[in-house]
Amino acid sequence: MSDANVNQLWARVLVEELVRGGVRHAVVCPGSRSTPLALACQQTEGLKTWSVIDERSAGFFALGIGKRSRTPAVVIATSGTAGAHFYPAVIEASLSNVPMLVLTADRPPELHGWGAPQTVPQARLFGEFARFFADTAVPEANEAVLAHLRATAARAVSMARRAPRGAVHLNVPFREPLAPTPEPFGEERLSALVRQGRPGVPMTHIHPPSRSPDLQALERVRQGIAATERGLIVCGPRDEEDGFAQAIAALSQATGYPILAEAASQARYGGGAATISLYDVLLRHAPFAQSHRPELVLRFGGGLTPKRPQQWLDSAGARTILFSDEGALFDPSHRAEQVIEGSAVTACEVLAQGLSRGLGAWARGFLHAEQLARNAMEGVFAEQSELSEPRIAHEVVASLPTGANLFVSSSMPIRDVDAFAPARGVTLRTLSSRGANGIDGIISSALGMAVASEGPSVLLSGDLAFLHDVGGLLTAHRHRLSLTVVVVNNDGGGIFSFLPIAHASEHFEALFGTPHGIDLSHAAALYGARFHRPTTPAGLRAALAEGLRGGLHVVEVQTDRTGNVEHHQRLFTRMAAAVGEGPWA
Amino acid sequence: MSDANVNQLWARVLVEELVRGGVRHAVVCPGSRSTPLALACQQTEGLKTWSVIDERSAGFFALGIGKRSRTPAVVIATSGTAGAHFYPAVIEASLSNVPMLVLTADRPPELHGWGAPQTVPQARLFGEFARFFADTAVPEANEAVLAHLRATAARAVSMARRAPRGAVHLNVPFREPLAPTPEPFGEERLSALVRQGRPGVPMTHIHPPSRSPDLQALERVRQGIAATERGLIVCGPRDEEDGFAQAIAALSQATGYPILAEAASQARYGGGAATISLYDVLLRHAPFAQSHRPELVLRFGGGLTPKRPQQWLDSAGARTILFSDEGALFDPSHRAEQVIEGSAVTACEVLAQGLSRGLGAWARGFLHAEQLARNAMEGVFAEQSELSEPRIAHEVVASLPTGANLFVSSSMPIRDVDAFAPARGVTLRTLSSRGANGIDGIISSALGMAVASEGPSVLLSGDLAFLHDVGGLLTAHRHRLSLTVVVVNNDGGGIFSFLPIAHASEHFEALFGTPHGIDLSHAAALYGARFHRPTTPAGLRAALAEGLRGGLHVVEVQTDRTGNVEHHQRLFTRMAAAVGEGPWA
Repeated sequence: MSDANVNQLWARVLVEELVRGGVRHAVVCPGSRSTPLALACQQTEGLKTWSVIDERSAGFFALGIGKRSRTPAVVIATSGTAGAHFYPAVIEASLSNVPMLVLTADRPPELHGWGAPQTVPQARLFGEFARFFADTAVPEANEAVLAHLRATAARAVSMARRAPRGAVHLNVPFREPLAPTPEPFGEERLSALVRQGRPGVPMTHIHPPSRSPDLQALERVRQGIAATERGLIVCGPRDEEDGFAQAIAALSQATGYPILAEAASQARYGGGAATISLYDVLLRHAPFAQSHRPELVLRFGGGLTPKRPQQWLDSAGARTILFSDEGALFDPSHRAEQVIEGSAVTACEVLAQGLSRGLGAWARGFLHAEQLARNAMEGVFAEQSELSEPRIAHEVVASLPTGANLFVSSSMPIRDVDAFAPARGVTLRTLSSRGANGIDGIISSALGMAVASEGPSVLLSGDLAFLHDVGGLLTAHRHRLSLTVVVVNNDGGGIFSFLPIAHASEHFEALFGTPHGIDLSHAAALYGARFHRPTTPAGLRAALAEGLRGGLHVVEVQTDRTGNVEHHQRLFTRMAAAVGEGPWA
Repeated sequence: MSDANVNQLWARVLVEELVRGGVRHAVVCPGSRSTPLALACQQTEGLKTWSVIDERSAGFFALGIGKRSRTPAVVIATSGTAGAHFYPAVIEASLSNVPMLVLTADRPPELHGWGAPQTVPQARLFGEFARFFADTAVPEANEAVLAHLRATAARAVSMARRAPRGAVHLNVPFREPLAPTPEPFGEERLSALVRQGRPGVPMTHIHPPSRSPDLQALERVRQGIAATERGLIVCGPRDEEDGFAQAIAALSQATGYPILAEAASQARYGGGAATISLYDVLLRHAPFAQSHRPELVLRFGGGLTPKRPQQWLDSAGARTILFSDEGALFDPSHRAEQVIEGSAVTACEVLAQGLSRGLGAWARGFLHAEQLARNAMEGVFAEQSELSEPRIAHEVVASLPTGANLFVSSSMPIRDVDAFAPARGVTLRTLSSRGANGIDGIISSALGMAVASEGPSVLLSGDLAFLHDVGGLLTAHRHRLSLTVVVVNNDGGGIFSFLPIAHASEHFEALFGTPHGIDLSHAAALYGARFHRPTTPAGLRAALAEGLRGGLHVVEVQTDRTGNVEHHQRLFTRMAAAVGEGPWA
């Protein structure tokens, strides 16, 4: 077997093991040193291969696939700085428990340290943010080292998929020649070697221990619930397992506790009867906030996006139980007295057994206030034909059919969806970068989400997030992907206008507002997207309807950064005032 | 003093110390946690502040400034994944000895580890690629901690600027409130505190030891030179100090050795009389290569870009001396028997003393062969009106006036400039990413180069490198920068067509060729650049002439990936054949 074929065998075995471990998508960036890995992806059955030119975009694309499918995509870069572009996505994966499998091709050891081109020390390139790192050996056609390679690949997939999920990194050195040799390749013999072992089963099938929640701890929580009428179920951003909305709905019914469901909690759209969305507005009404302090809080997922409700919860003095599937501790104010790790769905099911309080006056108080605020919001919307930022968020969510996917950018879009897109009966998957809350890689992440799902996909983004990852659209163009990108364009960083800095510095526009005057229609033209620029709610709905039928769409809605702050305040004031028109139960 | 003013004081003191250490440019990315640092940049005299929206682009922009000015630019990101986008630029800085000063704003210690938003462990974010890392304390208005801050800032600048130069990283936590408080700021008192110490002088002025080359070692080299007529001066990519071309020219005159000067060696344009550029072609002529093997090689900078001349040197059996200003060991084939660290300019001057061989038959042999190859190339160009890739590289360099800056992308552009843009008498600064040889961040790096220089600036890029960093143009648009970007658009990764993989896989186009069909005029429109699409050499020259007068220009030249390989081969063959028409001396 020639040298090139050894590389090929090595890469094929490695990729075959990844697929046996459950990997279904490969994201491949162009490069020479990674040639054997790129080819192996195309040659391995059961793997869909995506070519992505910019490694940063590729990293977020893989992140989006991992988020949506909860299965790691493998993402591959050549040697040099290429792999370093994965870093932001790797960090986000680590903080939001998204599985991802990073392969960096490398030059062999004898080329390191003496100035060979495109040679970077790549070991532990992602530091503490990789859940697992291994440097594979230089390829050899030798049973012992091939077994080690298979086992290492199996272990890498296992580590990416087990709690706490995250990115793992294999660094894979190759010697030249990198391309298959031109003489007959011996594909049959190669395939036989690659297929050794049990088809579809990893070389070393590692079974992590069950992560069933602690039953004794749950029993004590149940006793607390039984003794407490004024309880709340609070669902922050999370996306750990299927069936969560149903489990939470059942728990709500059993406990009589309303559900404060954040936009990206997977409990708001298609959730329980006592789902509360407009908590931010409700709690702006001081008498309501004062009279509805809970005594027990069951928290799932991350902290709530708006500050006020989270602070209200933190200051309520309630006993707080945090359910954390994978051990992430979303409790910066240290209110949780118990943290219960393991499947939250199981925890809900266990807790609901033997409880049957049903929704009573306590829950109805929240629901009634929610309805009053909602009526007020819809009243304002009915009066206006203006496409304000709250209205955009509202219309986007309202237009999505069951089974649709919505990626929501950090910064203003997630706040607006959370505040103005209340619960609906349709089941939506709402994803956001909830680990490090960056506005980076948003387009690429949404595209990854889109290719990992059968349903239609929409991204709601601000203009800075859009421009930050505009190159991500190249992948949509090259692979003819379907995504509708709604860009709220307020010509700069809208969130800063809500912060004290907006009034505190003459340098505000230059450093924070950062207006750019970019005409986004050119971005659509550059990447072959249909472009829409609606100015009315009906126009936005029409553009969304067209987008949901397929293809790549950029829907720009122009808004005004300064007016936006006022508009939010007016809307909040009117909604909160409506809450004041109780009685609430 | 209110809390906000403590943050402000802290940031002002820190930035003031950086300026005292010599920093002249600040690259600021929008963010909230970094507010005090961003404002401090605007408020500090002697610092030019650039707002850049995408942190990756900002990192490369700072890299370009550092490359061109050999002085670190400070680049600032907020907390979270933002700083991770600097990673590729930090790695390139580390490998190519470019000074850079990275500041990441951070949340204070009490917000870490418990799920607070936008909170990432940022200590040692860049691993072994940062020359120095320090976590500053949480701001306090206390003389002892302020002295520590000043001294740490002074040390950071010193570490970035001393050999081996590279990126340093300070992580700076801030507590809220982040904006200056609205009450009277007490600017006078604040300024007095900031200005404490000696104006323009660092708090702790650290003087690194002199890096004069070892005189005894140089004396032995001089004896070797005196005893050896067949010697070569080989200058690979390097850009360590001013005066290099002159020092090399004088050394060449003194030793009688011709100078093989790579395109980015700073010895080719405005270099010595015995400068040889077309070495790749000369050595394709076997009798010439055979009869011109050197016995002594004085190497400066990195390895030569084309493989053949480097392999010829490696296999010549010559005694090889590597001059390495900052200790980087560009010698992957381990031919150097001596490595002489320290200023190469000084080393040249010391060596030239007492030698006066002058250019003789040995050097004239090279020069004559170079002239023959050059005549052949110009003959081919005179026959054709086609804008081939070699011709583009040739015309771009030929059109630049003294004092111009040329950034050349890795991959094909640097190879084409090296092969087809021979020595000229005008002095040019030619920069490329010679550390890790990536095609990343090219537009942003070139823009950084442009703002750090008075002369006109041109970037020669391929289409993939252009698309990889297309968002970098946003900074040019926002700050109305002048740069002429020449994009050789062969609709994909042209270099792969030169590799064996081009003929070895049915998946070549999908994974390596990666055609995209993008119309680059839309990119120019998106970022407000003048767009040119010349199809003849005269058209290209006209576009370049317009670009050199100022403004942002995108000059696209469309070529054909497959035809390009053949074209190179034909041109090389004709040029090498011309060499065969010696005699060479």
